[in-house]
Amino acid sequence: MTVSDYVPTPRTTPSRHTERIGYDRATAHAVLDEAVVAHLGFVVDGRPVVLPQLHARVGDVLYLHGSTGSRSLLAARDGGLEVCVTVTLIDGLVLARSAFNHSINYRSVVVHGTASVVDDLEEKTTALEALVDGVAPGRPAGTRGPSRKELAATTVLRLPLEEVSVKVRTGPPIDEPEDLDSPYWAGVLPLATVPGAPVPDPELAAGIEVPEHVLHWHRR
Amino acid sequence: MTVSDYVPTPRTTPSRHTERIGYDRATAHAVLDEAVVAHLGFVVDGRPVVLPQLHARVGDVLYLHGSTGSRSLLAARDGGLEVCVTVTLIDGLVLARSAFNHSINYRSVVVHGTASVVDDLEEKTTALEALVDGVAPGRPAGTRGPSRKELAATTVLRLPLEEVSVKVRTGPPIDEPEDLDSPYWAGVLPLATVPGAPVPDPELAAGIEVPEHVLHWHRR
Repeated sequence: MTVSDYVPTPRTTPSRHTERIGYDRATAHAVLDEAVVAHLGFVVDGRPVVLPQLHARVGDVLYLHGSTGSRSLLAARDGGLEVCVTVTLIDGLVLARSAFNHSINYRSVVVHGTASVVDDLEEKTTALEALVDGVAPGRPAGTRGPSRKELAATTVLRLPLEEVSVKVRTGPPIDEPEDLDSPYWAGVLPLATVPGAPVPDPELAAGIEVPEHVLHWHRR
Repeated sequence: MTVSDYVPTPRTTPSRHTERIGYDRATAHAVLDEAVVAHLGFVVDGRPVVLPQLHARVGDVLYLHGSTGSRSLLAARDGGLEVCVTVTLIDGLVLARSAFNHSINYRSVVVHGTASVVDDLEEKTTALEALVDGVAPGRPAGTRGPSRKELAATTVLRLPLEEVSVKVRTGPPIDEPEDLDSPYWAGVLPLATVPGAPVPDPELAAGIEVPEHVLHWHRR
């Protein structure tokens, strides 16, 4: 563990597969940046709610975009909303000889903390730009920026990256020694998220070419 | 709404974008079946936890595989664990002319309910087979089935599909009328999850061919 790692806490310390957990800041940032959506968890009336949200990381702050329902937003304004934000990248299907040892290769980040509503217009502008850049790197320069009215209509949550863990599984299946000679194929089927051909808006004005950041889209 | 729809409840009724929410059972099932992982939310000490989990649907029951930590499992044994399970499929990036109107095309399902631990060996066998089939349809016939010891070591949660909603966004960006003639490209960049070339286990016995269910893998 280096000085740049996140500090483990009881709730970022798993009870099993502890060899797969880590706290490396750069790895956590890379996973957060590569994921297209995050899953935001919060509590309403003692019961859990999990919603997909667009997110963007700026340094050690995670911004979340979109509606979380009026009651949770009230909570986020009123001292902060306890959240757990999880992102998961699926890298492959792990096909073992035994049913029991099937798994997936993945990279996931879990963030615990208190989210608050961003009211400062400058910070909101930065966050919205990061969110658009998160959808397609380079995109902010290829759009009309937000008006003050649009900024006011946008809700952005701010979550400091402090209590963070990364979990990673890589490599081949782990079968029981007695299964290694069985007649079943075993290995990994890699999975990737890939873009198709861009679909222009039906109302797109004539003569506008598909820009580079769309043609050669990639996650950061 | 048909008789086969799920019945909306306060917590499956959103406060905005209500036009995107639905309760169609077949659509919900299709989204659950296509997703490789689910995000499972539950509450520990009043605070939310969200973890990625493998899942499989059998009729109107969702099975979840894997560890949720010993304390939540105790709760799941002791009367049930309140959970929210969310799956999200990302179909495309919605690139509007204005930063404000950026979005993604997606299909997501949110399930609220009480999860319990499956103790019955027969049900556990069915669930594990469904989980393996969920990873790769057709896979159960190409593996060694679980031993009694392995079944005992497997934890499966059972969540009835009763309080379920589906949210879907499709189609082009929705820009402000005054932006339609702006010089910015707008449209959708489709995204898909695609398999790469299978990577055989380094210890695979000689002469075992890659099976059909791996070569032509697809989600159900």
